[in-house]
Formats: sequence, C-alpha cells, structure tokens
Amino acid sequence: MPETRPETRPATVQGATDYQALFRGAIERLHGERRYRVFADIERINGRFPTARWRRPDAAPREITVWCSNDYLGMGQHPAVVGALTETAQRCGVGAGGTRNIAGNNSPLVDLERELADLHGKEAGLVFTSGYVSNQAGISTIAKLIPNCLILSDAFNHNSMIEGVRQSGCDKRIFRHNDLAHLEELLIAAGDRPKLIAFESVYSMDGDVAPIGKICDLAERYGALTYLDEVHAVGLYGPRGAGIAERDRVMHRVDVIEGTLAKGFGCVGGYITGSAALCDAVRSHAPGFIFTTALPPAIAAAAIASIRHLKQSGTEREAHQRQAGRTKAALLDAGLPVLATDTHIVPVMVGNAEACKAAADRLLERHGIYIQPINYPTVPRGTERLRITPSPFHGEAHIAALREALVEVWDALDLPRAGTVFVEAAE
Amino acid sequence: MPETRPETRPATVQGATDYQALFRGAIERLHGERRYRVFADIERINGRFPTARWRRPDAAPREITVWCSNDYLGMGQHPAVVGALTETAQRCGVGAGGTRNIAGNNSPLVDLERELADLHGKEAGLVFTSGYVSNQAGISTIAKLIPNCLILSDAFNHNSMIEGVRQSGCDKRIFRHNDLAHLEELLIAAGDRPKLIAFESVYSMDGDVAPIGKICDLAERYGALTYLDEVHAVGLYGPRGAGIAERDRVMHRVDVIEGTLAKGFGCVGGYITGSAALCDAVRSHAPGFIFTTALPPAIAAAAIASIRHLKQSGTEREAHQRQAGRTKAALLDAGLPVLATDTHIVPVMVGNAEACKAAADRLLERHGIYIQPINYPTVPRGTERLRITPSPFHGEAHIAALREALVEVWDALDLPRAGTVFVEAAE
Ligand SMILES: Cc1ncc(COP(=O)(O)O)c(C=O)c1O
Ligand SMILES: Cc1ncc(COP(=O)(O)O)c(C=O)c1O
Repeated sequence: MPETRPETRPATVQGATDYQALFRGAIERLHGERRYRVFADIERINGRFPTARWRRPDAAPREITVWCSNDYLGMGQHPAVVGALTETAQRCGVGAGGTRNIAGNNSPLVDLERELADLHGKEAGLVFTSGYVSNQAGISTIAKLIPNCLILSDAFNHNSMIEGVRQSGCDKRIFRHNDLAHLEELLIAAGDRPKLIAFESVYSMDGDVAPIGKICDLAERYGALTYLDEVHAVGLYGPRGAGIAERDRVMHRVDVIEGTLAKGFGCVGGYITGSAALCDAVRSHAPGFIFTTALPPAIAAAAIASIRHLKQSGTEREAHQRQAGRTKAALLDAGLPVLATDTHIVPVMVGNAEACKAAADRLLERHGIYIQPINYPTVPRGTERLRITPSPFHGEAHIAALREALVEVWDALDLPRAGTVFVEAAE
Repeated sequence: MPETRPETRPATVQGATDYQALFRGAIERLHGERRYRVFADIERINGRFPTARWRRPDAAPREITVWCSNDYLGMGQHPAVVGALTETAQRCGVGAGGTRNIAGNNSPLVDLERELADLHGKEAGLVFTSGYVSNQAGISTIAKLIPNCLILSDAFNHNSMIEGVRQSGCDKRIFRHNDLAHLEELLIAAGDRPKLIAFESVYSMDGDVAPIGKICDLAERYGALTYLDEVHAVGLYGPRGAGIAERDRVMHRVDVIEGTLAKGFGCVGGYITGSAALCDAVRSHAPGFIFTTALPPAIAAAAIASIRHLKQSGTEREAHQRQAGRTKAALLDAGLPVLATDTHIVPVMVGNAEACKAAADRLLERHGIYIQPINYPTVPRGTERLRITPSPFHGEAHIAALREALVEVWDALDLPRAGTVFVEAAE
C-alpha cells in the first residue's frame, strides 16, 4: 500500500491494551494456518469475457482467462444490461440518494420488485443491497415475526443464512445436508410448534442440488414454512430462468424464494419473493432493509434488463450447460479428480490448503489461468479444491488450454488424481 | 401490485400455524400504531436536481421538488461521477462477478480503498456493500478480535452500529448522547479492560455534532480504541471533505473512521479506514465482507471520481452550508419550529405521527414538495418531524417556495409554532 501515512498517535497508556498488536496477531495466526488470503487484482474486459486484465503487484499487467467467476452467463457484459445501466445513469444519476423510506424509493427499483415477483410466480418481491443481506435480514425478520419459531437449517447452508438464523435469536436444529429422513425426524420432534425450513437449491461448493419437492412434501405434512436460497440457480435453470424450483415445477410450493442479482444476472443486489403479506412485513420490520441506502436506479434497471432477457431466451442456459458438460468431460478424461455434479459447477479436488494455493498460483503465473483456491473455512479442511465455473463464453479452445494447464500443474506438483478419496479432516 | 398470482398452496394442515395470518397481523399492528409506511415512488432527473418525477399510484406522473435527499451535494448527478460510471461499465461490464476473494477483486475497487485511506489519512481502507454493512461487520469483527472487549456506545447511535455491537456478543455500556462526563464515568468503571468507543460525528436526525477531540482525550487517557461514523459528514466537512474530524483537526487521533459512499459522495457502498493491521484483520475475519459479491467496478470508479472532485473543490461545501443557513433563516423567520443545529440538517418539529404524515402528504399533493415524515422508531415518539436537507442546488426560489408551502400547511393543519417544547413521550 503506497499511499500510507504513519500513525501519529501518542504512545499507548501504561497498562492499556495494545490493540494493534491484537490485530497483527490475528493476521499472523492466519499465516500460521496457511489461511491468509491474497486477492488477485483483476479488471474484466467488457466484450471479451472470460478475458481479464491482471494487475500484478510488481510487474506489468497481463491478460488472463478467468475460470472462477460467478457471473455464470456473462450477463454482466450483455449489451442490453450495460446499456440499461448507462442509459439510466444518464437519465437519473448514480446513487438513489436515500433509504427506501426517505427519498430513495426509485421507480426502476419498484419495477424490479414486480419483475422478480413475476419471475418466481409470487405476489411480491423485496430487494436488498445484496444476497447476503437478503438472507441475513430476511431469515432473521421472518423468524422473529413467528412466535416460538423453530428454524430447521441445512448443515451446508451459506454463511449469510447462518447469520440470519443466529440473528433471529430463535431455536434452531441443523439437519444433515439434503437428508430428508433427518429433516423429518426433526420435524416430528418439533411437534405443533411453528417451523421454518431454510435450505439452498444448488450448493455452490459441491454443485449438488436439494430435493426441493420432497422437502415441500415434508413441510406441508408437518406444517412448516419453506425458505429457499436460489442464489446459484437464478437465471441458470428453469424455462424462464427462475431456478431449480421452476425447473422441478415446485416453485409455487415454496413459501419464500431468495436470490441474488450478482451472479447469473451479472449485476449486484439481492432479494426475497413471497406472499404480499410476508414481503410487506419484512419491508416494515427488517433493520437491514430499512436503515440503508436503496440500490441505485441504474443498477435496478440493469438487473431488469438481465432478468427480462433471460426470461425469454434459453440460449445462454443451453450453452452454459453444454460448456460445463464439455469441461467436466475433458478434465475427467485427463484423469483429474473432478467431483461429479449435475450442475454447472466443476470442483477439482486437491485436499490440502498449501497444495491448492500452489496449484492456483502456478496456473495463474505460468498459464494465465485464474482459478481461486477454495480453502477452509469456505470448505471443510481436507476437501480443498479448485472450483471451476465454465460459462457460455468458455469455448473449445479455452477448455483445451485449461485441460493442458491443469495436467501440467498436476504433474509438476504431484497432485492427487481421479479415484482419490478426499476425507474431511476432523477439527 | 398488478402482476400478482394467486397462491395455489394446499389448505393449511390441521392444527398447524397460519403463517400468513401472522404476517398480516404484524402489518395490521403497524396500521394500528399509525406507523405503516408508504414509500413515495420517485425518479430523479439527472441534471435537474432537486427536481424529480413522482409516479403516483392512480394519476399521471408529476414533477416535484425533493427536499429530503441524502445526496447532500447532488454529487450523484455530477458529470464526472456519471461519466466515470458509464465509462467504466462500458469498459468492464456491470457486476464484479464474484466475492472479493473469488474473482470479484476489481482494480477500481482496489484503487477506491487507497483513495479512502488517503482521504482520512489512514494506512488502509476497506469497502463494503453499504455503510450499514460496514458498521455491522466492522464493529462486530473489531470487537470480537479484542478479547474481553467492552463497547461504549453513544445512546443515539445508528441502527447499523447497534446491530454491530449486538452481533459482537461483547459487553456494552450506553453513554448518554454526547455526554463526556457519563462516558468518562463508564471508562473509569471499566478499569484496565479493553474498550471500544463507538460514536457518530453528525447525528442525522437532530443535526448535532459530537465533541470528537474531547472523546479522543478520554480514549487516550483511559486506553480505549475509537470508532467514528462520519456517514453524514464525509464529502461535506473539512478542507478535503473527509468529515468533521478533519475539520476539527483530530482525524489522526481517531482509530477507525467509517463512512458511506451513498450520501455526500452520491453513489452506493460503505467503508472503514484505519491501521493496515486493523483493516487486514477485518478483511480476513468479517463474514459480511467475505461472503458477498464485491461492489461493481463502475460504482467504485464513480465513487473515486466523486471523492477526488470533493478533495480539491470546496465550492460544493460552501454552497451547501450557505443554502442550509438561508433555509434555516427563512423558516425561522416564518415562525416555524426549526430545531437549532450547526449543520446542514434542518429539522422542523411536528411532535405527532399523524400530523407529521398529514403535513408531508399535503406538502407533496398541494405544493409538489417532497419531505418524508420522520416518525418513530427513527426518532422518539413526541419528536416527530420533517427533516429538511438543503443542497447547493436548492436556490433562492426553491427556499421561498418551501417557506410559503410550509406556512400554508402549518396554518391549514394548525401545527405547533416556534417556541413549542417537544418532549419525548415515555414508552
Ligand atoms: C448460497 C449463497 N447465498 C447468498 C450469497 C450472497 O449473495 P450476494 O453475493 O449477492 O451477497 C452467496 C454468495 O455470495 C451464496 O453462495
Ligand atoms: C449514521 C448512519 N450510519 C450508517 C448508515 C448506513 O449507510 P448506508 O446508507 O450506506 O448503508 C446510515 C444511513 O443510511 C446512517 O444514518
């Protein structure tokens, strides 16, 4: 960091805490555990996705191929989306200028909420500054509005859902990941008390999918409300891009569908959709919705453009699945330890934090391929991996280059091959 | 909401909770307490601030004058800011495409953090998706990293700070608003234990200002870390627009300065600045920072343009203070109950929720003037008010029209005049 200034504080008071030493210590612990993260400084190049410019700390910038973006369809560079952003900014300016209640309730945002309600076949939608906030504020507020609510939460739920559960202050039970028998057991044990089942459709690190319909069966049988995170599925699955629940024809059976505007739709922001009463109650009670500046009109307009495009076009979804399938096949064929998934997510297992980082560093420096290593706490120790996300813009040449680069890295670092069993390390 | 679809769920199970009735009940309670909020649907008109288009539910759209925006300087429509947004979107697309760690660490965002560190004279800066999240994640993470930390929190702190304190799980003491003697008492009582003082510079509803230097004196004497929210001051005060601490020449004595990009800077997003170790520790530990998509490059670039402009130009700040002063003088001269403040915020007291809403409705419908009524829980009951925020773009004609409209409304509704004492209702 070049532009720093020395801290000019007086020496610490005798006997008082050395706060800076505490912060330095926290960082040193991460280094010690090989968990310290360095962010790659990259700039996307509009119109040339997945190519980006990598700004290196001590060398000239270099063009690289990004293989780990969650702009899964490249919608962030779609001309209609970029056009809606720039056109709306020219018409309305940049910021919303206020909270939803105080001057920030801009017309594009109101329209976006209608669009999202329509997308998921619900009465209403409610937009938050991010998917993270929509889960945290959504789950905590919904659960608080239900007296004596018990939350049943999938063991692999995202941190934003876990924080929502925690913030609700409600009792919770964790059911084993996608385990219907365990969920039913917990539902029966809970008896007549109000219950909220919180789960995801596509789990982003393993790429596996929840049995949504069967979870709805249980919810109906035992009188539970359902809350489904479709963050890694919206735009990507279903005839109109509403997600896995739409694909599986069970969307109308899920009470609350949550999503992001930042992945498949290529923008930023998050939302929930559900009954008019539920959305109105969350709108009126969630501090994380009420006390923050509204999403800018230009972002809302860009999101609308993206959603509308993907509602009527299946081309991107088909190309996405096709290229993901081809990527998986190419890597499997090369003997790489690809985790089998039914979705667009292609995890290649490494099983060790340092080796995973070394592989990613070598891929980037030698081959100009950017795949962020995924280590603890994002995945359990012992299951460290490279998480690859093919898009419709990753063509055959990209896939061939990826395969070749991975094989070179796997050979050079002597990494585990297909057939290896990866076991979660006990904590 | 026109585009709704009927819910087609099976009838509720016998004996199970009627969740929708709970949500409807929560809303009915708000109606009963006259606290149900209706958001005005408005669209800003770039280049014509403070004029906006009001989209009415059952009538043709109408042009109105906005007097309650927190885009305090109109920077959201500054050509350099809009230009940076559109140019960067054309170059990089819309979304960041990933979290900071996974493909989302875009170069404009890295540059923005340097710019913010420089603005506040700190070693480092860290950007979040909003000011709300920066407080919630910043305070909770900092406090958790300090073993046995006691948080001393001003009684009037914003909800985002309160949530941060709560989420930290640390012990807390609330000191009476801006009360140095009470703060000192609590610091002494805490003894040698680590302490974090959390407070704001400009309090947004009353427009009063914290004695930052004196709080730093106490912090140094008793060995406490200081965390200052400058959300309603950044861009607006100080020679380079860094806020009240800069104006008061005490910026270097504050450990953490938090701010927003959404008010004075006219964009969206939030941040903290502080020592390199502190920012790195928060970057590495805060779930609300780690597990969410990064701010879009175009937004980061727009924020940089806004900050840079306001670093070298004092014109907007001078015009802002001048027009705020003139607005206050005009309303006081008309006998309206303006709350005396030293800042740009002009609260006109009403003291009753229904009257406050009626006044705002009449202002909007009769006079085309939009000022959102501020009711409980944003302010204590009995102190309901119209919160007026003049900008450099509110000229003499706007002020004269505002004065005339307010007098008409005050006469018509027989509202309290200057000299009335407004007392917080006991809960
Ligand atoms: C399952 C899941 N839910 C929610 C989020 C948060 O969404 P956003 O990036 O819009 O904050 C993420 C990741 O970012 C996620 O993986
Ligand atoms: C004092 C204070 N801090 C933080 C925030 C949150 O900032 P943002 O709107 O960027 O989320 C607000 C209001 O929105 C505020 O008034």
